[in-house]
Amino acid sequence: MKMHDFTIFNDTKLKFGTDYIDAELSEDLAQYGHKVLLTYGSGSIKASGLYARVMDLLKNFEVYELNGIAPNPKIDSVRAGQKLVQEHDIDVILAVGGGSVIDASKVIASAKFYQGDPWDLVLNPSLRQDIKQMPYLDILTLSATGTEMNKGSVISNPETHQKLGTFGPQTPRVSYLDPTLTYSVSKWQTAAGSIDIFSHLTEQYFDRASTDVFDGMIEGVMRTVIANAPLALANPDNYIARGNLMISATMALNSLVGSGNENGWTVHPVEHELSAYYDITHGVGLGILTPRWMEYILDDSSLSKFVQFAKNVWHLNGDDDWKLAHAAIQATYDWVKSLEVPTTLPGVGIEDEINFQAMAKSAVEVGRLANGYKPMQAQDVVALYQASMTNDHFED
Amino acid sequence: MKMHDFTIFNDTKLKFGTDYIDAELSEDLAQYGHKVLLTYGSGSIKASGLYARVMDLLKNFEVYELNGIAPNPKIDSVRAGQKLVQEHDIDVILAVGGGSVIDASKVIASAKFYQGDPWDLVLNPSLRQDIKQMPYLDILTLSATGTEMNKGSVISNPETHQKLGTFGPQTPRVSYLDPTLTYSVSKWQTAAGSIDIFSHLTEQYFDRASTDVFDGMIEGVMRTVIANAPLALANPDNYIARGNLMISATMALNSLVGSGNENGWTVHPVEHELSAYYDITHGVGLGILTPRWMEYILDDSSLSKFVQFAKNVWHLNGDDDWKLAHAAIQATYDWVKSLEVPTTLPGVGIEDEINFQAMAKSAVEVGRLANGYKPMQAQDVVALYQASMTNDHFED
Repeated sequence: MKMHDFTIFNDTKLKFGTDYIDAELSEDLAQYGHKVLLTYGSGSIKASGLYARVMDLLKNFEVYELNGIAPNPKIDSVRAGQKLVQEHDIDVILAVGGGSVIDASKVIASAKFYQGDPWDLVLNPSLRQDIKQMPYLDILTLSATGTEMNKGSVISNPETHQKLGTFGPQTPRVSYLDPTLTYSVSKWQTAAGSIDIFSHLTEQYFDRASTDVFDGMIEGVMRTVIANAPLALANPDNYIARGNLMISATMALNSLVGSGNENGWTVHPVEHELSAYYDITHGVGLGILTPRWMEYILDDSSLSKFVQFAKNVWHLNGDDDWKLAHAAIQATYDWVKSLEVPTTLPGVGIEDEINFQAMAKSAVEVGRLANGYKPMQAQDVVALYQASMTNDHFED
Repeated sequence: MKMHDFTIFNDTKLKFGTDYIDAELSEDLAQYGHKVLLTYGSGSIKASGLYARVMDLLKNFEVYELNGIAPNPKIDSVRAGQKLVQEHDIDVILAVGGGSVIDASKVIASAKFYQGDPWDLVLNPSLRQDIKQMPYLDILTLSATGTEMNKGSVISNPETHQKLGTFGPQTPRVSYLDPTLTYSVSKWQTAAGSIDIFSHLTEQYFDRASTDVFDGMIEGVMRTVIANAPLALANPDNYIARGNLMISATMALNSLVGSGNENGWTVHPVEHELSAYYDITHGVGLGILTPRWMEYILDDSSLSKFVQFAKNVWHLNGDDDWKLAHAAIQATYDWVKSLEVPTTLPGVGIEDEINFQAMAKSAVEVGRLANGYKPMQAQDVVALYQASMTNDHFED
């Protein structure tokens, strides 16, 4: 066995703390021009006062706005953004929100320099490598996707039931990470975001080419998420818990800890079908699928990795490796459940199996599931969905 | 308690693997100009064939050479380099070697734009922030200091018995990390380098403001170094062990895992006095001092951190916290000893206490020891040196 070659390069500037936005946002943006597209979601930033605060900092800029970017961001938002940035020759995007707002903004940043429908840029991300991308900065309001320090986006097309990943040439120029901006995040979204972080880590940890050093770093971030998510649920204003979740989200998916991996992500593409078909909360879907997926990939060849997971992440001990492995998976299930989210598909309103075959077929096509820690075919994905209909496999 | 604010930004490009040098070095260098200063050390790169390989890749460049850069790099090497880059208006530096070669090259890169003696730039690093720095790239041949992804250097002045840290404005443009280039590193240097990595981690872990998430990442890198250093000693051509050490070195000191810390480094400044006075191998000095320093800082207030260290790093278990803490320190001592390096000052030829007072005074002045996890004054440093004269405090 040989470690795979890899490169690491990430020139996003992270500014973690409470003071950077007021002190540096205007100056940071001004480096890129005078015309700003401000993107945001449902308007919760108006309720929280963040919108007014940002607009005040932008008073010397020419500001255009794109709002209403929804969870599982839709291609229509990208199309609307493309129109704005092209029509007004906008210089720079400031995304204020969570993963959805930032993801949509990244594709808008490419779409300025593309004359066709931006859905092309999702279907065929290589198009984006050959065109420019507008500079974009973000103020993060949800700890979850890691989009604040990577090149990726996930965009949905409700007409075609597709939810696809796409990568541009650039990460954010600056990401402002202020944990106090996540105090108002609901329990539901806090839980879903924390599970999303944890899933990013498991997808990279259970990889056929992962290395000791990045495994070890992942284990540390996993323990941090496991410990801090319940603290943030219990006390939404816990700065240290919110801060640790925020950094964990960023570290979990800034292309560092998966370096050299074979990138055999499984649970994300399998979940993307759920949220594409049913528009459920991504992190909640991941929380349902992850323990089942772990049981599915546990076999003789993966046993030692699960023992490592049990010891280094869950602090479990014992001499029976199989018991340890199952106990670690049960612990994962228990942790998800402790975050007060549903743990079955019926719990999120998916009551029948009618779409399982179609979703499984699509997951296999889109998701490179053959690259997974344990390769999966369509019938395996169907089995995973079916196992998610009840909690029979776990102690409740 | 509140987490400290911090920023993270590092635009070094890491290229990890065996093929990047031949495939990309010429192109990478050409971005920065035509005149290259090639810096290296004792000539071991000639024996290994690396020199000839690099010169072949540089055949279309105008190459100047600075060789003979020694361990604990001396200001005289920097002065010689300054003369060359100024006289020939050199565009870019390619450092081929370990920490010493790269450290000296970084200061030369600043000294091109400084008309005075470069020792000024070591004594007063703020001078370097106001002047340009030449671009520099490196081919790393020793896993140890982390200089391949940070802005720091440590430079010695034998005339004044000073060994001081200095920071420039830029990290390396590209660092080539090829584990096979470390196959020829001696057992002694492999051990010393691994201890250096471990010490960088303990310095940042035992910090009054460290955070869960970076603590967790540090613990993972610590376990990696602990596990892989003996493998590399036993089998110098173990690609995976050498690779894990190389990435660990870089991750341990690229300014990531210490983010938000109070930077109360203690063992490094205390060791720098040893190598400034006696020119001993830095990592070996750290290995002698570290377990003593741990015993010194262990008290009621630090106990819980040592218990965490015992459990997460050394996989120790038990109900008696003090026993756990001492066992973790003993394990640290045992690990250093297992790497076949001396574990006392007399073991490296320091037989008497004649310089302890002067060294302690200097360490306190230079090292910001008041910021340490447990603040130290001169008499504490003397006590640390004295405790390092024998192994009486440890089970051997």
